[in-house]
Amino acid sequence: MTSTGENRFDAVDIIRVKRDGDELSDAQIDWVIAAYTAGEIADEQMSALAMAILLNGMSRQEIARWTDAMVRSGVRMDWSSVDRPTTDKHSTGGVGDKITLPLAPLVAACGAAVPQLSGRGLGHTGGTLDKLESIPGWRAALSGEEMLKVVRDAGAVVCAATADLAPADKKLYALRDVTGTVEAIPLIASSIMSKKIAEGTGALVLDVKVGSGAFMKDVASARELARTMVELGTDAGVTTVALLTNMATPLGLTVGNALEVREAVEVLAGGGPPDVVELTTTLAREMLAAAGVDGADPAAALYDGSAMDVWRTMVSAQGGDPDAALPTARETHTVLAPSTGMLTELDAYRVGVAAWRLGAGRARKEDAVQAAAGVELHAKPGASVRGGEPLLTLHTDEPERFERALQILDGAYTIAPDGARPDLPPLVIDRVAV
Amino acid sequence: MTSTGENRFDAVDIIRVKRDGDELSDAQIDWVIAAYTAGEIADEQMSALAMAILLNGMSRQEIARWTDAMVRSGVRMDWSSVDRPTTDKHSTGGVGDKITLPLAPLVAACGAAVPQLSGRGLGHTGGTLDKLESIPGWRAALSGEEMLKVVRDAGAVVCAATADLAPADKKLYALRDVTGTVEAIPLIASSIMSKKIAEGTGALVLDVKVGSGAFMKDVASARELARTMVELGTDAGVTTVALLTNMATPLGLTVGNALEVREAVEVLAGGGPPDVVELTTTLAREMLAAAGVDGADPAAALYDGSAMDVWRTMVSAQGGDPDAALPTARETHTVLAPSTGMLTELDAYRVGVAAWRLGAGRARKEDAVQAAAGVELHAKPGASVRGGEPLLTLHTDEPERFERALQILDGAYTIAPDGARPDLPPLVIDRVAV
Repeated sequence: MTSTGENRFDAVDIIRVKRDGDELSDAQIDWVIAAYTAGEIADEQMSALAMAILLNGMSRQEIARWTDAMVRSGVRMDWSSVDRPTTDKHSTGGVGDKITLPLAPLVAACGAAVPQLSGRGLGHTGGTLDKLESIPGWRAALSGEEMLKVVRDAGAVVCAATADLAPADKKLYALRDVTGTVEAIPLIASSIMSKKIAEGTGALVLDVKVGSGAFMKDVASARELARTMVELGTDAGVTTVALLTNMATPLGLTVGNALEVREAVEVLAGGGPPDVVELTTTLAREMLAAAGVDGADPAAALYDGSAMDVWRTMVSAQGGDPDAALPTARETHTVLAPSTGMLTELDAYRVGVAAWRLGAGRARKEDAVQAAAGVELHAKPGASVRGGEPLLTLHTDEPERFERALQILDGAYTIAPDGARPDLPPLVIDRVAV
Repeated sequence: MTSTGENRFDAVDIIRVKRDGDELSDAQIDWVIAAYTAGEIADEQMSALAMAILLNGMSRQEIARWTDAMVRSGVRMDWSSVDRPTTDKHSTGGVGDKITLPLAPLVAACGAAVPQLSGRGLGHTGGTLDKLESIPGWRAALSGEEMLKVVRDAGAVVCAATADLAPADKKLYALRDVTGTVEAIPLIASSIMSKKIAEGTGALVLDVKVGSGAFMKDVASARELARTMVELGTDAGVTTVALLTNMATPLGLTVGNALEVREAVEVLAGGGPPDVVELTTTLAREMLAAAGVDGADPAAALYDGSAMDVWRTMVSAQGGDPDAALPTARETHTVLAPSTGMLTELDAYRVGVAAWRLGAGRARKEDAVQAAAGVELHAKPGASVRGGEPLLTLHTDEPERFERALQILDGAYTIAPDGARPDLPPLVIDRVAV
């Protein structure tokens, strides 16, 4: 009754459709996304709709159209002038997840092109751009032309998305963040996939984290999110697979921006913690297979220095100095193991919050982060520890932050005196493909 | 984690509680209502919460506290200086529902005081203040002192609520109206009851309309709304009962502002349509009983002129001239019965929308209404009609409005040629009390 013409809709009518558990039409979805991006639908209407979507769900067709409408709210990048197949990886976010740093140059070294538009951290999970910005001189913001030049020269680029990439998602994500409507699988999946489809990659590997340090705490919801995203990518013509990987404990031995860059460089030099190496090479194989690149050996490319060469070119191309010393924290505080025994548990969420409280993360997207802050682990679950020896080292420029970090770490780890090795979950829990 | 102190909450945390189907604490509800009224919770957060309440419901304790917090957001009026018991009626809104007009003076004539704060129409349902404003000179806005004087002089006042009465509800109602969150029983019940409790009446009779022209289309939801409101009133110390009454067809023979005043005056003069008289006297008996006034005879007070005397005093006390001619429309259009037979159906919703389209109602609360616009019925369901004789007369000042009014009236009535009297529902369907 309140619609003003054949092709126009009324926001309240559309909210009611979803509120009452019915399905939105393609035309309604197209109108909602376009009108919201243009400021014709008020934030209070969009948040009511988002809550109705969260509680009543969306059909596969609705999610696909919603995603497509968000892609169409901006530009879709075109990498057809690059003479290699494009492939990318997206992680749903975890603690100590620096995998993109060695992975992008590794996959480029193996013959594919990696055009990765990445993000910043929020809350207890870190962001790839924050990590790279701890490299002196490195800059995240590139124009479309600059991105293309870096991909051509280095084979890989990791940078910030331009403002014209899925602007509907940018606006909606900021709204969801303050209205308790982040945790909706249709909205999470469409947010991630609209950016990745708009990015223009030909193939995509999703690293869906599961566990205390991840957004998805249980395997069932992680699998549903993975399946939804794989369907969305496939429907949009992007070869998409997903791995469900363990985020019960941090990845590697460092959590924090410069600390994680240091560890990534160790991996590129053929060293580094076994779990980081394993996940990097596993994801590299998936990305290369999805892009149709056969015969490459990612493990070898870490040992022979070819991945490191790409890393150095890539960092330099974005103004960074790959040889510069990384920032170190003004203060450190070491947590000693309180007893001797087997470390059976080291909780990813609590370590992530500790790093955030030390200054490595941000509560609001306007906040600055400390490059050198974070947590260094001296042991991982499954290792024997000796009472009185270092278990964790906390890094920060502001020593008044130690107290609240130590509070959250109280109870973050378990040391079993009997010494039996715990039954740890595998790093890769499952694989989802069409 | 984001709350800033012991007695402060975070809006997102509170949205999450309701979103996840849990119960809000008293302290959380108090904070939400106070912070929203003070502008510390954004509209987009409140609308997400309202949608979560709509879809996940509220416990009796939550609804009671929510209502109480809205009452406490403003003043609670005090009628203790009036030397009669106070009693009031609230209708959930219907088509042709002019009952307050004869009812308030009738109940005052029978010995109780009626301090009725009333509202304006929105959409297809009319508003009591809009109707009374068709009386030349009558004004709805009174100060608290003026209200007290009118109640003392006339025994009844019908006027607009002051801005300091349940301001939280005013703000929330405007938000719900544009976010598809009107149709939630906890929010409807707390909105109505917060205003009535703040109004300070000692007794309250709720007229919960059921049928096409009402907000509640089915008896089950009307009964749930009635029960919720009776509990809220009782918990707040107001003697409260509810009647479920039929709104499948319009009340009386007129729909529109001045048209309904004319009919109300006919009732006060001892005439008027039987359904209006029946509902007026039934509600009067309930209001008097709830207020503890025994021995009065409402039917007699309509015939002996005592209710009319109160009406004249009440209208005059608010600046109105009870003897002035009511406005009449510039144009009328008569719809003739297309065939001879029994009128078995005359749809309240469609007649209400027709009156709205003729200018009697408003789409947004800023819109003006026409005093003289509306629909006059020449027959009600259960009456025999003759083909070619007048069935409805449409009134408006703007003849270009006839076309859209006639569109919605197409299919609004059914004439059965065989002439059997239809099985009509009773006017009073049910009574709900504690």
